[in-house]
Amino acid sequence: MATPTATSGPVTSPAAALPAALEPPQRVLMGPGPSVMDPAVLAALAKPTLGHLDPAFLRIMDELRAMLRAVFGTTNHLTLAMSGTGSAGMETCFVNLVEPGDRALIGVNGVFGTRMAEVARRCGATVTEVKGEWGRALTADQFRAAADGGRYDLVAVVHAETSTGVLQDVPPIKAVADELGALFLLDCVTSLGGHPVTLDAWGVDAAYSGTQKCLSCPPGLAPASFSPRAVERIQRRKTKVASWYLDLSLIQGYWGEERSYHHTAPINMLYALHEALRLTLQEGLDKRYARHALHARAFVTGLAALGLAPRVPLAERLNPLTSIAVPEGVDDAAARRYLLEAYGVEIGGGLGPMKGNTWRVGLMGAGSTRRNVELGLAALAGALRAQGRSLPGDPLAAAAAAYSA
Amino acid sequence: MATPTATSGPVTSPAAALPAALEPPQRVLMGPGPSVMDPAVLAALAKPTLGHLDPAFLRIMDELRAMLRAVFGTTNHLTLAMSGTGSAGMETCFVNLVEPGDRALIGVNGVFGTRMAEVARRCGATVTEVKGEWGRALTADQFRAAADGGRYDLVAVVHAETSTGVLQDVPPIKAVADELGALFLLDCVTSLGGHPVTLDAWGVDAAYSGTQKCLSCPPGLAPASFSPRAVERIQRRKTKVASWYLDLSLIQGYWGEERSYHHTAPINMLYALHEALRLTLQEGLDKRYARHALHARAFVTGLAALGLAPRVPLAERLNPLTSIAVPEGVDDAAARRYLLEAYGVEIGGGLGPMKGNTWRVGLMGAGSTRRNVELGLAALAGALRAQGRSLPGDPLAAAAAAYSA
Repeated sequence: MATPTATSGPVTSPAAALPAALEPPQRVLMGPGPSVMDPAVLAALAKPTLGHLDPAFLRIMDELRAMLRAVFGTTNHLTLAMSGTGSAGMETCFVNLVEPGDRALIGVNGVFGTRMAEVARRCGATVTEVKGEWGRALTADQFRAAADGGRYDLVAVVHAETSTGVLQDVPPIKAVADELGALFLLDCVTSLGGHPVTLDAWGVDAAYSGTQKCLSCPPGLAPASFSPRAVERIQRRKTKVASWYLDLSLIQGYWGEERSYHHTAPINMLYALHEALRLTLQEGLDKRYARHALHARAFVTGLAALGLAPRVPLAERLNPLTSIAVPEGVDDAAARRYLLEAYGVEIGGGLGPMKGNTWRVGLMGAGSTRRNVELGLAALAGALRAQGRSLPGDPLAAAAAAYSA
Repeated sequence: MATPTATSGPVTSPAAALPAALEPPQRVLMGPGPSVMDPAVLAALAKPTLGHLDPAFLRIMDELRAMLRAVFGTTNHLTLAMSGTGSAGMETCFVNLVEPGDRALIGVNGVFGTRMAEVARRCGATVTEVKGEWGRALTADQFRAAADGGRYDLVAVVHAETSTGVLQDVPPIKAVADELGALFLLDCVTSLGGHPVTLDAWGVDAAYSGTQKCLSCPPGLAPASFSPRAVERIQRRKTKVASWYLDLSLIQGYWGEERSYHHTAPINMLYALHEALRLTLQEGLDKRYARHALHARAFVTGLAALGLAPRVPLAERLNPLTSIAVPEGVDDAAARRYLLEAYGVEIGGGLGPMKGNTWRVGLMGAGSTRRNVELGLAALAGALRAQGRSLPGDPLAAAAAAYSA
């Protein structure tokens, strides 16, 4: 399309050069997120926009906070949705809790642990990384060894590593934080709504998530929650939070009782989250976690019949997201392109050291269904056959056996 | 609704306690934003979500960039939509362009100039505020006097002060930036799509906007654009950008040719912006600016018949947003509540020193229509009568006369 030159002043592009109205293809989103959505969530997104100070919208915010508390397993007063994606949620936690010179002990066994360490350093923290193998969970002893008797203000770990498909056992790491007298921060991006998350029972001080994983809502918001101890830490800060946009001491004036203007909330995105949370709680959290476990087990059983193996040992494996070793001789990118073009199925590739050798298949939220398990297996079978592989077994029979077990 | 206690573990809230599905009332949004939306924009919002690395979505991003360049009046390569609201756009500009110790000269004649100064300070800048009267534009001489012969790295001003309804003449302030050899930053939140914005002709180095004003898209994204000179400044930084989430050196890897993953883009919000930009350019920018001018003039003419006066002199007045002095003896909050309850019309109150004594009426984007001009006048007439005021004239006749003039 035409773009203006420096001297042309206001430009009216000829309508002929305009792109057509969007008609995005209908994909089955089986990657690491965004995930398959319930049509009711997309419908909520398109409901009439309210002003951010309209009393009707403020009531919606109250309902959102109550539902967020329920899925996070917390009574934390400061529970809200930040106006950015999951990574903004991560940054919110560090920029508010860390002051320059603070010491942070951070588990790093994937992209998102690595990102936490980077974000913490940019907030002025001195970071000790607890380095673990990608594709394995971290142990309390690894944290203790890395801490090496030092003083720490904050311990952080990823509950569900989206880059590797690893589920982290939380209480042992919390125990280390307690030994150190440190605040405890948990990344719940890919676990919230898919695995039990119980902030209060675990003693988590700060947690963040995203909307586009197991909550099955479009990307764009970051649910987050802060314990009274974290709020006290924020109140005791000696320095201003470096980010005005993410400053909780200001934002809680809008989400709290005061209702003072901070920034214009992303109204329609919050409608979608309201509906996604409603559907999540309507199903019941325990039933939802069990559904994710059921379909993950059937999917992995089917994978074996394709000659594919999950990258993560069973005891440390996520249900919403399965990482798979790409077999020797299979072209990763070509296979994923085939899935997209022949089946309209999106799966994810690997990141970092897993780039080119790992597939990530999400069965998240509304996408965790028998239909998608069998479609995913069928599509993977098709993609492997298209590269001339012969398959050792019948994946649908294997999945069916898992469902009747 | 039920919330968990610290010992209860995962909580399944009883469905009976769940809020009902949302049915937000249909308002006529005549405040300072969000604004009235075209139904096609809300429909685009609800289209099927694509993955953020899907080739079909990457094409949509290319179209978005081309359309953003057209409305910004620029050929800047680094033109994109940040994944946050307009305030995140402001923070993006400062956090990327400012390094600790830099000196910034910032015009402050309303809430958003005040906010720029605060954000700049949090990024480590030494800020000189060019203090002007709220409700009046700033002059180049005010900038020169405040600069007082000092060295500055950055000059910033608000093009359209949403808090006061003032339109700033841009070239004289750019001239001061040139005299100082400083980068020039412009807040275009309430002007983009409603008043001519010509970044290249003006020599603007960095600009940001919001989606929920004259583009008539829901809130949640911040269009932004950076000149080659600004990009060079970013490349020459000695320190890392304090915000990982807003770091343009990383984000341009996703929006640019590299297509590398940074964070999961707010897909559906970007659909809505695509449609909003398409409708804007389909109308034609010059016609759109003229439409905003026409309806603003008719509205202000009608106000006189209600005994209401705009706060800002004609030559400095915004078209998309008119600020009005609340007459002595009229209850501001009661009047706005009446407008909302009796007419479903939202207007804004004042901020800062204008709180309680100013109304802000937006005729923005799809909301800048004769229908809304006359509805707004009728509703204001009703609200004033409800407080026992007698009205000096016939606002509809006055508006009609303005339209036929």
